[in-house]
Amino acid sequence: MKIDKLVGERFKEKPSDCVIDSHALMVRGGYMKGVANGIYSSYMPLRRITRKIENIIREEMDSIDGQEVQFPVVMPASLWSESGRYESIGSEMARFSDRNGSPMVLGMTHEEAAVHLVREYANSYTKYPFMIYQIQTKFRDEGRPRAGLIRVREFTMKDAYSFHTSQEDLEEYYARCYDAYNKIFARCGIPEVVTVKSDSGMMGGSVSHEYMLLTPVGEDSIAICSECDYRANMEAAESIIENDCSGEDAPLEEVFTPGIHTIEDICEFLSTPLEQSCKAVVYQKNMTDEYVIVFIRGDLDVNETKLTNYLGENVHPGEITEGCGLYAGYIGPCGIDSEKFTVLYDLSLKGTHNLSCGANKPEYHLKGLKISRDVGEVEYVDLAKIIEGGICPKCGKHSISISRGIEVGNIFQLGTKYTKSMGMQYLDAEGNLQYPIMGCYGIGVGRLAASVCEAHHDEYGPIWPMSIAPWQVEICCLRADDEECKGVADELYDKMNEANIEVLYDDRNIRPGAMFSDADLIGVPVRVTVSPRNLKEGVCEITTRDKLVNEKIPTENVLEFVNNLVAERLKASR
Amino acid sequence: MKIDKLVGERFKEKPSDCVIDSHALMVRGGYMKGVANGIYSSYMPLRRITRKIENIIREEMDSIDGQEVQFPVVMPASLWSESGRYESIGSEMARFSDRNGSPMVLGMTHEEAAVHLVREYANSYTKYPFMIYQIQTKFRDEGRPRAGLIRVREFTMKDAYSFHTSQEDLEEYYARCYDAYNKIFARCGIPEVVTVKSDSGMMGGSVSHEYMLLTPVGEDSIAICSECDYRANMEAAESIIENDCSGEDAPLEEVFTPGIHTIEDICEFLSTPLEQSCKAVVYQKNMTDEYVIVFIRGDLDVNETKLTNYLGENVHPGEITEGCGLYAGYIGPCGIDSEKFTVLYDLSLKGTHNLSCGANKPEYHLKGLKISRDVGEVEYVDLAKIIEGGICPKCGKHSISISRGIEVGNIFQLGTKYTKSMGMQYLDAEGNLQYPIMGCYGIGVGRLAASVCEAHHDEYGPIWPMSIAPWQVEICCLRADDEECKGVADELYDKMNEANIEVLYDDRNIRPGAMFSDADLIGVPVRVTVSPRNLKEGVCEITTRDKLVNEKIPTENVLEFVNNLVAERLKASR
Repeated sequence: MKIDKLVGERFKEKPSDCVIDSHALMVRGGYMKGVANGIYSSYMPLRRITRKIENIIREEMDSIDGQEVQFPVVMPASLWSESGRYESIGSEMARFSDRNGSPMVLGMTHEEAAVHLVREYANSYTKYPFMIYQIQTKFRDEGRPRAGLIRVREFTMKDAYSFHTSQEDLEEYYARCYDAYNKIFARCGIPEVVTVKSDSGMMGGSVSHEYMLLTPVGEDSIAICSECDYRANMEAAESIIENDCSGEDAPLEEVFTPGIHTIEDICEFLSTPLEQSCKAVVYQKNMTDEYVIVFIRGDLDVNETKLTNYLGENVHPGEITEGCGLYAGYIGPCGIDSEKFTVLYDLSLKGTHNLSCGANKPEYHLKGLKISRDVGEVEYVDLAKIIEGGICPKCGKHSISISRGIEVGNIFQLGTKYTKSMGMQYLDAEGNLQYPIMGCYGIGVGRLAASVCEAHHDEYGPIWPMSIAPWQVEICCLRADDEECKGVADELYDKMNEANIEVLYDDRNIRPGAMFSDADLIGVPVRVTVSPRNLKEGVCEITTRDKLVNEKIPTENVLEFVNNLVAERLKASR
Repeated sequence: MKIDKLVGERFKEKPSDCVIDSHALMVRGGYMKGVANGIYSSYMPLRRITRKIENIIREEMDSIDGQEVQFPVVMPASLWSESGRYESIGSEMARFSDRNGSPMVLGMTHEEAAVHLVREYANSYTKYPFMIYQIQTKFRDEGRPRAGLIRVREFTMKDAYSFHTSQEDLEEYYARCYDAYNKIFARCGIPEVVTVKSDSGMMGGSVSHEYMLLTPVGEDSIAICSECDYRANMEAAESIIENDCSGEDAPLEEVFTPGIHTIEDICEFLSTPLEQSCKAVVYQKNMTDEYVIVFIRGDLDVNETKLTNYLGENVHPGEITEGCGLYAGYIGPCGIDSEKFTVLYDLSLKGTHNLSCGANKPEYHLKGLKISRDVGEVEYVDLAKIIEGGICPKCGKHSISISRGIEVGNIFQLGTKYTKSMGMQYLDAEGNLQYPIMGCYGIGVGRLAASVCEAHHDEYGPIWPMSIAPWQVEICCLRADDEECKGVADELYDKMNEANIEVLYDDRNIRPGAMFSDADLIGVPVRVTVSPRNLKEGVCEITTRDKLVNEKIPTENVLEFVNNLVAERLKASR
């Protein structure tokens, strides 16, 4: 490929809408172009990268006995009604009516389609286990697309579904897939990806893991223990609190607190620490708008994922209206109407005393609250977000730190959620009907490409690993108007093409600076610079984008040297 | 791959909803499963076939300097409004509103996205020519999906777009693409595909070709000359009529024809041939419902594509309502209100006389019509369908026959329709702004797979060519319970896998008949049968699905023999 024929613009200025480096570099390098919010077209360099990623994924999925299939992008709503998700998934699922008025959806994941494909086939235990996967376009109508290919609305995803006759069999396969995923990320050039335990969210099921690339620009928060190997998504991390019950019980007292609405203000007013307060956080259920009030220690935050999982339905921040029976800023556990509202207590309040809280009437708070004495027996639930410096749920030390990460893949143990709801059964060896157990396994191809760029770039451009680089070698002919220089470069280009080396050739009549900055943006691993000055010594300069190699090689040996370098790096990534 | 692990059902009975063989065989063979009308999931064998087809297409597109890109499936309606197609395309385009209420469409073709991707980049004549292509899912809400993968609503398509600075340059590239397409079809195993001139339809532009696989089950009609190389889609074929003006002019006479409504009946009533009548065919414009009346020789039919192209808008069969000024069954040229209605005359009426026709009043017809005398000067347009035995527009002989075909690809010269409407311009060498000229080039991947099956199958299953076969070799172990037989087959399987031969292995404990009928359905080109009887002679039986090879080969030579056979056939398809 000659670079002067390469469609796409490269430029210097960082686009103002790019908040992370990979996004800016991939726009500046002519990798992609926005078509709508969270929807992109790819130019050739990115398409070559994603194809290589797809092939790596394919090889690793095949190596764990995956069968590549293909599900449709457009599916009838009826299929999603079978599992109940047509109703339970909100506005992130795109819906339309076809020309006959039948409701259709765009696939954002394909559990329903997977069960549909195999439910007649897999009617006997002898057909199990098996795994099917596809690499296909998906559409998820994200509310906040951001960061280029990291969070988009349309994306290409590898999604895999495995079917088993026992939990043990699922776990065994899950472990194989766990390893295959590690191989995939390593082969794509980011072996530093870590696994964390995660919440299954709308997928259903219990055990699940996310593969995280730790980076300050990531949108996920991960709790990591510095003392043991505990790692979990904030959403899933258990919050362990050492509750303070020291000192004498104080009596419950009403305090006139005009104009004081926040838990911070009341603690300041009373000169007590935040830890000695009971904060009310108000939500409403999405379906019914019923109020859900969570009481939690004043210095902690509610983990909405835990709350949603506990309730079994989605919630949104509550809006306190007049006459609803709640007084914003003055809500407390004493006298709250637990028939009318769903009232929950976080574990951080269990066994505590001498708390300040709202009095459930305007302009009054209480102090000296002891829930067991003043409210009675209540159930405590883990609803708090784990905190920096918090207690590790595994080793018990105060060793939790919070990092940011990009989720580059996930694996779920789904259980029988879909097979039960969609009536998929098989006959076991004893002739009894059983529901198969499923696992599912996803990787977003474009996000993975962007993550590799995020992990490996400098200020000048991406540093692509050989395994997924758009081209393996770039020839820079520094003086296209010099006959010898152009002749040598042309010949190298032809020979590399013949040798099946993927080569990009820059023979434009431009300044070396402009040529090199384009080369940096395209991020090809090996660069061969042909210049009159070097040719006087009979050599070409060979450098690598990662700066590990910088050698002058006799022109007649360049092909062999480059060939070996490419082969070596490809081999290292297998 | 072991066949007992292959997900998908194979069965004997022809499904009742399958009207063509390829559809029936691909359902019976576990290639695909319907998800909704015109929407399918693919099992592994089909996915392997389509991937191989995609790779062949990719190689040939790359060989004519194509750059693989990717456009989105979901696009903002605004992009389609730029070209005017958001309004002009009807219900075959799926539309929905995203979560913010923005109107979106599902891509059914990508001219708009192609122009969007390159319009800033290609701002100088020095950037031209170039071609970009993608292989991507498309959705077209067909009114009548049919025949399995031949006409579906969701499909994978290779679509390519070329950009040029002159018509000559486009034509030169068009010719390269024309050849590349022939190579693609030949490599996929259907070199018998022919090209026909076609109508460009909603794509705009002028010159276009379709690649047709001639088969009685095709849904397109093609006019083929038996005397020269003329071939055209019926929709585009010029109709040439030798009009009969022999004999004397008869006077125009009104005839009372109660209860006679059809042109056939009036001709029978008057004892005149159909060729001596003037039929009225009534349409209405889709946008305004304005009537369009086409007068045409009684024995001919209107070609609606020609009509639509002439009018520049879409029409539907007219519904004649009371008071509209038309009398069904009695419409004729004399006295028709040509201010109120669009009135058109087909070339078949030019210079004729003594015609019978409607009298524009109930229960009356006319005879003796001579349009030039009785109506005056009118314009005649070619609006008729070409007929079997009709005149070849190229060689002028009565040598046209009508065949059926499946369109497996098409190429269009688009002109400046999209670049003009979407404001894409470049500076030419003289510094003037110009609109680039486009070509576009499509191949449906699934339809191509089905077409190969349609062209090459027997009653037992598809006969896949080596180039796109789901596997290259199948080993049938006829007695899995026989230790030697199983041992030899296992070893062959392992060795072939090691040798990177794509091998499907059937070691199930089933009757040979059932095993062979499954093998026929999967249609793998080379079959190695391992049986105790053959092993007594130290041989395995090697047959090919196309019956050209049937040999007993000493067991120790099987691997080499198979390897050569596969390589030979792969080479032949390059």
